Amino acid sequence: MAIEEKSGKHGFAKYLLLEEIYNKYSSVFDSSVGDNLLTNTLYLEGIHFNLVYFPLKHLGYKSVISSIADVYCSGTNPVNISVSLGISAKLSKGDIETLIEGISLACEHYSLKIFSFDISSSLTGLSISVATLGSVAGNKVKNKPAETDLICVTGDLGAAYLGLQLLERERKIFEDTGVSPKLEGFEYVIRRQLKPELKLNVLNKIKENNIDPGKMRIVRDGLASEIMHISKEAELGCRIYHDRLPVDHETAEAGRELMFEPVIAALNGGDDFEFIFTCPVKEHEKIRQIEGVSIIGHLVPKEEGNSLVLHDGSLAELKAQGWSDE
Amino acid sequence: MAIEEKSGKHGFAKYLLLEEIYNKYSSVFDSSVGDNLLTNTLYLEGIHFNLVYFPLKHLGYKSVISSIADVYCSGTNPVNISVSLGISAKLSKGDIETLIEGISLACEHYSLKIFSFDISSSLTGLSISVATLGSVAGNKVKNKPAETDLICVTGDLGAAYLGLQLLERERKIFEDTGVSPKLEGFEYVIRRQLKPELKLNVLNKIKENNIDPGKMRIVRDGLASEIMHISKEAELGCRIYHDRLPVDHETAEAGRELMFEPVIAALNGGDDFEFIFTCPVKEHEKIRQIEGVSIIGHLVPKEEGNSLVLHDGSLAELKAQGWSDE
Repeated sequence: MAIEEKSGKHGFAKYLLLEEIYNKYSSVFDSSVGDNLLTNTLYLEGIHFNLVYFPLKHLGYKSVISSIADVYCSGTNPVNISVSLGISAKLSKGDIETLIEGISLACEHYSLKIFSFDISSSLTGLSISVATLGSVAGNKVKNKPAETDLICVTGDLGAAYLGLQLLERERKIFEDTGVSPKLEGFEYVIRRQLKPELKLNVLNKIKENNIDPGKMRIVRDGLASEIMHISKEAELGCRIYHDRLPVDHETAEAGRELMFEPVIAALNGGDDFEFIFTCPVKEHEKIRQIEGVSIIGHLVPKEEGNSLVLHDGSLAELKAQGWSDE
Repeated sequence: MAIEEKSGKHGFAKYLLLEEIYNKYSSVFDSSVGDNLLTNTLYLEGIHFNLVYFPLKHLGYKSVISSIADVYCSGTNPVNISVSLGISAKLSKGDIETLIEGISLACEHYSLKIFSFDISSSLTGLSISVATLGSVAGNKVKNKPAETDLICVTGDLGAAYLGLQLLERERKIFEDTGVSPKLEGFEYVIRRQLKPELKLNVLNKIKENNIDPGKMRIVRDGLASEIMHISKEAELGCRIYHDRLPVDHETAEAGRELMFEPVIAALNGGDDFEFIFTCPVKEHEKIRQIEGVSIIGHLVPKEEGNSLVLHDGSLAELKAQGWSDE
């Protein structure tokens, strides 16, 4: 599983393991959103980032984005973060400060305060843990998706994954031959990997239009994984239309350069940090007019499964990557 | 710094670096306790634990204790935790479940719910991040310590550190010679390392007696570091009495076995997870009668510095370990 190894993500099958855990220890799990919501993300060197090409300032910024993203999906606003760093010996005090500068910039941009902050040594590379406390805003999401609901996504997909592949390719060339990285013309996909932003303006437009989205998730481990999670939770299936998947022309260009099908990057890549959500079909006209939202498919009865509708109208089963216990 | 290397902690000098960071980025830091409080701890293999002798169930338990401990110090109660694991390839699905069993046991014991839970791969050993959301209870701590305040500590000190040294010694003997670990007679100090508990019963007695503690901290990086943090924040100094430091007889026994002065373990070791707090001198009689609390010294004017009063009445300057940028 090349995608899995490179992105270090486990996609949908990971959720099956998590589900087993939830079921076994259900007495101590409680994710019901009261007035507050708590998330926690862990960024590990060699899995989520490579310091060869990931500037520390961007890394600090992205680690905050990754932690706060899920909070918005529950209709809450992030308020505070708490940061814990494991610092390896190769990083200097100046490096730590650069990392924190990125964290601080994200706090300013997303109106967050750092509640607590700690540092410890690490023998095993840089580790960044960011916890987020979210506070419930007016628009608490509570709709259960219906079997006729539309499936929508903000922005475009696959760019961050192809940006990562380009950075990895250039890193290998540089390490093997000393030739400097050539990244001209691919600024967009690289920016999507190194400095993702959340489409809060689109979320605000959805709210202004009084559209009540059903289930919302952040596209973190690839679209397929997120959609299958939504349809499983709703006990439904889905149809996603191949030609409706939003792919930027620079993403398509990067795909040609890398001989990698951009739609595969959109479906199974990662780190898009776009919002995917369901929406009642009656809102079709309203949602269609919001810039930055694509209607990519709809839910269907469970028996119909999860499919990708290809150009010729034929169906391909949606698959996600596996979690291996071996 | 043998203690620092082994415990992976940085003690007081780390706080000087953190303080620099707080000052530089003060606009995004805000630790004022409103209705909620957020903490986040990161446990890293090779730094905070060695899987050779740390059972996964105990490790899960301890990682929760470590995250919730600080919450109690602010007079709040932990409510939810959020767990994020980085799992290396050497751990099986069964291992992950054992770890979670320990987390789950701690949740039951301390009345917590797991709000969210995530797993990712790790190339660099097991990483455990636990974030805690605390909710303000009645007895919010707000007293500013006065220069005549007593300094008190719950339970006893130095045991966890000597337990760790024993485990490390037996690990090395086992790896070098294959001789099985001999740990009989040292159950107490080993338990203090592997399965710490928080003295909530003592906190409750303090509350029942209407004693309003001032600053409270958890003894995590050694007593000296925590005391110096308290006195610095209060812009005062302190006197700690050598012969008042609570050391269990089994800790003293382990010290003899290891030829390590138990008082040094109490001052500069780590992982005691006892509460240290200041308390107005007028509460002397009440506090003296609470079982499980030792009055170990008092605050003094800043000019008098931080000292340890030795048996003969002479003063030794309190020192804490250093954070090195090299």
